[in-house]
Amino acid sequence: MGIVTLIGAGQMASALTFPLFENGNEVRLVGTPLDGEVIARLREDNYHINLDRTLHEGIKYYTVDQVEEALDGAELVVCGVSSFGVDWFLNNMFKLIPEGVPVISVTKGMIDLPDGTLQVFPEYWQEHMPEGVNVELFAIGGPCTARDLSDHDHSFVAYCGKDLKKLEWIRSHFETDYYHIALTDDVVGLEAAVALKNGYALGTAMAIGLKNRLGDDGIAHVNSKSALFQQSVWEMYQLLDIVGGNQKMIMYAAGDLDVTVAGGRSRKVGQYLGEGYSMPEIEEKLAGQTLEAVVIATRTARAVKAMAKVGKVKESDFPLLMHVDQCLNHGAKVDIPWKDFQTITCDAIK
Amino acid sequence: MGIVTLIGAGQMASALTFPLFENGNEVRLVGTPLDGEVIARLREDNYHINLDRTLHEGIKYYTVDQVEEALDGAELVVCGVSSFGVDWFLNNMFKLIPEGVPVISVTKGMIDLPDGTLQVFPEYWQEHMPEGVNVELFAIGGPCTARDLSDHDHSFVAYCGKDLKKLEWIRSHFETDYYHIALTDDVVGLEAAVALKNGYALGTAMAIGLKNRLGDDGIAHVNSKSALFQQSVWEMYQLLDIVGGNQKMIMYAAGDLDVTVAGGRSRKVGQYLGEGYSMPEIEEKLAGQTLEAVVIATRTARAVKAMAKVGKVKESDFPLLMHVDQCLNHGAKVDIPWKDFQTITCDAIK
Repeated sequence: MGIVTLIGAGQMASALTFPLFENGNEVRLVGTPLDGEVIARLREDNYHINLDRTLHEGIKYYTVDQVEEALDGAELVVCGVSSFGVDWFLNNMFKLIPEGVPVISVTKGMIDLPDGTLQVFPEYWQEHMPEGVNVELFAIGGPCTARDLSDHDHSFVAYCGKDLKKLEWIRSHFETDYYHIALTDDVVGLEAAVALKNGYALGTAMAIGLKNRLGDDGIAHVNSKSALFQQSVWEMYQLLDIVGGNQKMIMYAAGDLDVTVAGGRSRKVGQYLGEGYSMPEIEEKLAGQTLEAVVIATRTARAVKAMAKVGKVKESDFPLLMHVDQCLNHGAKVDIPWKDFQTITCDAIK
Repeated sequence: MGIVTLIGAGQMASALTFPLFENGNEVRLVGTPLDGEVIARLREDNYHINLDRTLHEGIKYYTVDQVEEALDGAELVVCGVSSFGVDWFLNNMFKLIPEGVPVISVTKGMIDLPDGTLQVFPEYWQEHMPEGVNVELFAIGGPCTARDLSDHDHSFVAYCGKDLKKLEWIRSHFETDYYHIALTDDVVGLEAAVALKNGYALGTAMAIGLKNRLGDDGIAHVNSKSALFQQSVWEMYQLLDIVGGNQKMIMYAAGDLDVTVAGGRSRKVGQYLGEGYSMPEIEEKLAGQTLEAVVIATRTARAVKAMAKVGKVKESDFPLLMHVDQCLNHGAKVDIPWKDFQTITCDAIK
């Protein structure tokens, strides 16, 4: 094993230090400009204030001004910024990565272009890489909460990239008896799947909010939650094809949807909407937290609308997404468009 | 609306009396030879002892010896038997259905043939229909617990059949403001999806059992549950294609998996296995309950093995199913084959 440098000391990157360190890598964790407090406390006693876990003694911590030192001798770099740090990473970090050192990213999300094109971050980065910089990109997707990974619960994710040999080499740094990693060369499919699931976890969680609103009425309300889960899978399945991914990546979209609906911020937003809160109220309740689900749902809806305008897709094929967008961005109250789910499909012949 | 006769007074058929009756249909519920107690009590005060709900006053109840009376004038028949009653229904009921009256079935499951062919019940029935009997078959699939449907929770299911016009007419009997119905002509795909999900709900629930076994260890263990959920979706996605269904039916497989893992008998079996109980112990704990998940998992595994023998599929593509089969039928203890999930897929090009 060798030196692995993680840039961004968010929860997921920090959780990845567990398998990396246990595999005998030298692990260097670099805070972004937003991670000052996190790094300060880690240096004291290895306790991560947001992850709420103590990292392994022996991990080396750096602030962003020390990033070049942290990169010196690294054989692998992990990009651990949130989707809000994508341009910061693009403009400030790539040029510092030593020649030939690959980057694997845990950042989940997509960019939408005016014509409705949805671009996953590895594509976006590749296209906008600073002049003269050439970095090989890989990415991570799949259902994995940072805390469960830190606690050594069995986790099953996928790593993607165009060079499968290099990907196997990357995997060898991470794989343990509790962290299981499939590999695929479908970067667009995997990354789209796990980006989309944030918006749809928000949508599915509306049912949880609606249930809460009714109070203890003696009804399990599992049907309505699974109904939205099902509709989410269907809309993501269509979107995977639209963005140019392989539809078999639906396994990661569905698996990641399952874990995301089980807890976390994306669920919270949908739940609060279902309970009847307005977006300004929700933003206040979740102040200081990055709401990636809101961003990805908004971008995906905007892309669908743009594509619909030129006849590439139909908005009516995405009723849940359109309703989520209405609630997030146009002041609508949750009122699930159930009847719009009643599609008639005539396609037994494949 | 008209007269709708349901044969089999199990939980799901009985729950369907809610939308049917509320739509103004004359609803006749016929008990099978196993439903004696259920019908006796329903006649007293409309209370269903297994569903634990009171049906609408005005529904007419029949015992099996009165089935011809119950069928007299019916314009639609619902087959509500469990998968264990498939041959009973085939051999005793179809010949009694008046000419031209369609049958829609809620029975979920598949038959496996010696060569590994998996047949959904509508296909099986069609092929073995008694001499001279000609009944048009339709079927119901999707995430819907009988109790939530009885309680008017929003439910989103699919009805399938070859004649979409007839299917729309059937839907008009059932559809309400809380019961939402998509339509498809992919009978094999939909019925395979919702049959397979029982076996995989058992498999996914093993993670819940493993968690229980560890006791309150402060770990959420959502990663391991979603890992098995994800692997289930992947194996079902492959199986849908193998049985000749359209892979877009994965939405119903995933949605129904979600609701089935949330509760019920299929989950119980997997959970008990995860907790360390042996199959004889589990059969004792669940004595008197029909364990459809055990049957479908066993049949699917047997089919995969038979197909693998002639090179049609690889057993290694179904590691979770194979392990479930080992636990159910060969005395194995739960020991999730995590590393076998680590596939390498090279198929970005569709």
